[in-house]
Amino acid sequence: KVVFCMLFLLLLCCVGGKCELQETKPAASAELPTVNPIKPFDHGPQAFPEEERANLPVFTMDYPRIQVPFEFTLWILLASFAKIGFHIYHKITIWIPESCLLISIGLIVGGIMYSVKEEPPAVLSSNVFFLYMLPPIILDSGYFMPTRPFFENVGTVLWYAVVGTLWNSIGIGLSLFAICQFEVFGLQDINLQENLLFGAIISAVDPVAALNVFEDIGVNEQTYIVIFGEGLFNDAVTVVLYNMFSFLADLPIVESTDVFLGVARFFVVAAGGVLFGVLFGFVAAFTTRFTHNVRQIEPLFVFMYSYLAYLVAECFAISSVLALITCAITMKYYVEENVSQRSCTTIRHVVKMLGTVSETLIFFFLGVVTITTEHEWNWAYILFTLVFAFIWRGLGILVLSQIVNPFRTIPFNFKDQFGLAYGGLRGAICFALVFTLPDTINRKNLFVTASIAVIIFTVFIQGISIRPIVEYINIRKTNKDLMTINVEIHTRVMEHVVCGIEDLCGQWSHYYWKDKFKKFNDRILRRILLRDNRAESSIVSLYKKLELQNAIDILDTPMGDISAAPSLVSLRYVLFV
Amino acid sequence: KVVFCMLFLLLLCCVGGKCELQETKPAASAELPTVNPIKPFDHGPQAFPEEERANLPVFTMDYPRIQVPFEFTLWILLASFAKIGFHIYHKITIWIPESCLLISIGLIVGGIMYSVKEEPPAVLSSNVFFLYMLPPIILDSGYFMPTRPFFENVGTVLWYAVVGTLWNSIGIGLSLFAICQFEVFGLQDINLQENLLFGAIISAVDPVAALNVFEDIGVNEQTYIVIFGEGLFNDAVTVVLYNMFSFLADLPIVESTDVFLGVARFFVVAAGGVLFGVLFGFVAAFTTRFTHNVRQIEPLFVFMYSYLAYLVAECFAISSVLALITCAITMKYYVEENVSQRSCTTIRHVVKMLGTVSETLIFFFLGVVTITTEHEWNWAYILFTLVFAFIWRGLGILVLSQIVNPFRTIPFNFKDQFGLAYGGLRGAICFALVFTLPDTINRKNLFVTASIAVIIFTVFIQGISIRPIVEYINIRKTNKDLMTINVEIHTRVMEHVVCGIEDLCGQWSHYYWKDKFKKFNDRILRRILLRDNRAESSIVSLYKKLELQNAIDILDTPMGDISAAPSLVSLRYVLFV
Repeated sequence: KVVFCMLFLLLLCCVGGKCELQETKPAASAELPTVNPIKPFDHGPQAFPEEERANLPVFTMDYPRIQVPFEFTLWILLASFAKIGFHIYHKITIWIPESCLLISIGLIVGGIMYSVKEEPPAVLSSNVFFLYMLPPIILDSGYFMPTRPFFENVGTVLWYAVVGTLWNSIGIGLSLFAICQFEVFGLQDINLQENLLFGAIISAVDPVAALNVFEDIGVNEQTYIVIFGEGLFNDAVTVVLYNMFSFLADLPIVESTDVFLGVARFFVVAAGGVLFGVLFGFVAAFTTRFTHNVRQIEPLFVFMYSYLAYLVAECFAISSVLALITCAITMKYYVEENVSQRSCTTIRHVVKMLGTVSETLIFFFLGVVTITTEHEWNWAYILFTLVFAFIWRGLGILVLSQIVNPFRTIPFNFKDQFGLAYGGLRGAICFALVFTLPDTINRKNLFVTASIAVIIFTVFIQGISIRPIVEYINIRKTNKDLMTINVEIHTRVMEHVVCGIEDLCGQWSHYYWKDKFKKFNDRILRRILLRDNRAESSIVSLYKKLELQNAIDILDTPMGDISAAPSLVSLRYVLFV
Repeated sequence: KVVFCMLFLLLLCCVGGKCELQETKPAASAELPTVNPIKPFDHGPQAFPEEERANLPVFTMDYPRIQVPFEFTLWILLASFAKIGFHIYHKITIWIPESCLLISIGLIVGGIMYSVKEEPPAVLSSNVFFLYMLPPIILDSGYFMPTRPFFENVGTVLWYAVVGTLWNSIGIGLSLFAICQFEVFGLQDINLQENLLFGAIISAVDPVAALNVFEDIGVNEQTYIVIFGEGLFNDAVTVVLYNMFSFLADLPIVESTDVFLGVARFFVVAAGGVLFGVLFGFVAAFTTRFTHNVRQIEPLFVFMYSYLAYLVAECFAISSVLALITCAITMKYYVEENVSQRSCTTIRHVVKMLGTVSETLIFFFLGVVTITTEHEWNWAYILFTLVFAFIWRGLGILVLSQIVNPFRTIPFNFKDQFGLAYGGLRGAICFALVFTLPDTINRKNLFVTASIAVIIFTVFIQGISIRPIVEYINIRKTNKDLMTINVEIHTRVMEHVVCGIEDLCGQWSHYYWKDKFKKFNDRILRRILLRDNRAESSIVSLYKKLELQNAIDILDTPMGDISAAPSLVSLRYVLFV
């Protein structure tokens, strides 16, 4: 373990060294901008003095050429090392969420970079964030989304995501505007539109930050899926509000048509995202019908199509997050039946891996950029932002839960509601959005500082304290059962019974729609999208799923321990003898 | 299948459409260079006329923002579709190598792009090629390098790679210089250094092009590994010669010290590459000792470290290919014992996948750029280049084989030598190097054209004809045995016997060194690099390897057929009952 710490420090030094290297280099690199410049090795012992320069150099060095991929790789490596480090001393991660630790490391690295006057890495520009770092995380969330609990709670999720986010944005925006009217605080130059814009930015709950905390605690499935879903689906609202308010921020008067257009735009953004997602999901599933001869590149299609869905949605400024989630949910079922099991393992592992790396990097950079960015500190504005963000979130959950509870089979009790409210952490999306603000906004730096304050506060204070609080007030914990065929058969029977009773009463609940979709799926979709489309009972498919899980578990045994695991070769032998 | 063709055409149209879109867009995109510009949807029905522009737009579009990743994804998808297409009609790929088909498709796409006056994609600049597209291929080659045959033939491989490449470069360079002296051809302005530089570029055998052909044919292991190794290891020579000649091309007189420095540089380049590779390989293996708590990101380290080895080598202008191969060979053994089997599957599949995609893209772009680049056609120079490349290759193999044959256990007969000579295809490395030439060289375009001519000639004529010729002259075919524990035990016993006899005779052959390394490995390396370093007999490790293969094969059964495969759940049951 000591060795490992040394390794980590070495890498830190390496990054530091690189920074200095970079600073002393620009003069040298500027004079030789050709592709393959041959120049004497200018660090370490100078093998050839200046006058012999005409000779063929034995050592050459060309750092600028490899700078971008090299530094990118180093950052990833540094973040990965941090992750390994936390898990070696895994007592830490029980009480402090990984996100906090990563931000702390980021703060330290940022401090080092600040002290050597190094430029912050260009990596957390908002374009890089939205085009390269966010998609892997969303794909990860969408691909491993627990489908059944999600569809059972879809109404509640959408209710919190849409109305809750609107409520928070407008509430925080208006309250802050009220604060700005007091002359003592020196904030009169911030107008209503800018406050609302800031409110929209700050009100989006981040799925990554929240999940990072909730996954470890093991709260009940309903609370978990609502937090998760809210984080993912409030993207549509945030995008619309952000575009609308930043559009309005330039206008002196707001017409009523703009409000109607805003509502229209919300539906375009949401429906467009879902549409693109479903479309690309089906095309992806259809493509994997034909990949049985090119198994090596099979997993590629999952990544390419989901990324395309995301990019196309970004291009038309509709909800790219919605598009990617829908695409992942749509294709998962069909793709996994079409591809080989090895490809399936690879797809799952790579999706998880990319998601984890992106997430790690984002928290890490959040720490770095917190130090290296320009700040404008205003006690009043920042404190009131914190207070309002907290109050409006709590009020929102309280009011919205009272409205939604009568429609739920399992209503949220007060403890659950507290969990929902307290789990509303802000994270990287908020951070990236505030950096996207146009420079025409005078107090942009103040908004940046206030956003970072809210993020750090929620991630650190709420993130660290949520575990003890959840355990103290005794919120219902996870109610996941071990999946067995027996449970599945009983659930299925109950569903059919409920469906029949509802039919008799003349009610169409989600069981009815589920039944309809199942028929449509068996008759049409499976025939088009699957290579081997034998209509199979879902019990058999569950059995297959369990077996696949089993095979993967066997593969998960570390190589060194395989002699301990039941031998596959001998097992097969036993069966055939 | 018809549906698939339509899909493919659709994508072609899509790329075409994109090109036109791009051409009609610059005016629109130039006026709004902000990060998140809100501008009316300017394709399809114009929802809002110009005078209402002040309203909140319901549709917006921002293509330039997503252009780079979007086009990159589309290219990959196009190449993948081409690959699927070939394998659907798999009768084609039996007689025509995939590389030829890909180049042909590339030529067609290039033709379309040329006809709509589209700029060629910036993707095949030499920097992109060397920093992003070559590493996955080399990693693939290095990671799946058959270790035993390679180390048994390492002397021959190095002999052909080093001396053969020197022979070809100098031979072709000098002959072409002789041709340039004839006034009829109008080539007097090409001096000796430029000819030698061109010779160095054109003499490097490409591992990708050659392997693509040889893998399908199944020639004997010795010929295969020599062609493979030569392609991989001539990189060191090519890099040195290229740098030396392009340095000398600027100088009027060549001093004798330069030649000595050139030789010194060769050793620096080769030894440095191997050193960096081994270093990074060991660090990678050491890191995976600690990853058992972060299984999700385990595969990442393999990619990060090997890429770092490559980049650092590129930075110091030493042989990056050697560094990457050595790194892959070094770490493979230790990493695969440290990581979980799921990670192991993922690593292998992703390495293969990235390699395949890069390879596909390279051949594809080779076709595209052939059409879209500027050419200078000179019948004499191009024809003589073709002839000399062919003659010097043949002569070189003939002469070098006579020298190396007495030292080989299985000497190369004339048929093998013909296979070696005829299999010397030129490919993408040659192509990328010629584009790296500085613009100070007057006849750069002629060199580009001549290189492309040689590549197209060797890949198409030699690539297509090699299979019938190999079958006609009846070259020894593959002699791979099915790996069983029985074979392994006997080979091991024979090796020990040979080692003992050699010891008695006072000879130190590679068996002696193998034995020494084994002891060193067991006593020191395994203790440092492996988490679970029980010294185990190599028979047990072979057994494990076979079992892993077995487990992976089971996973390879398509999802739909798992009921046909022996059930893992029930198998385990049988064992425990």
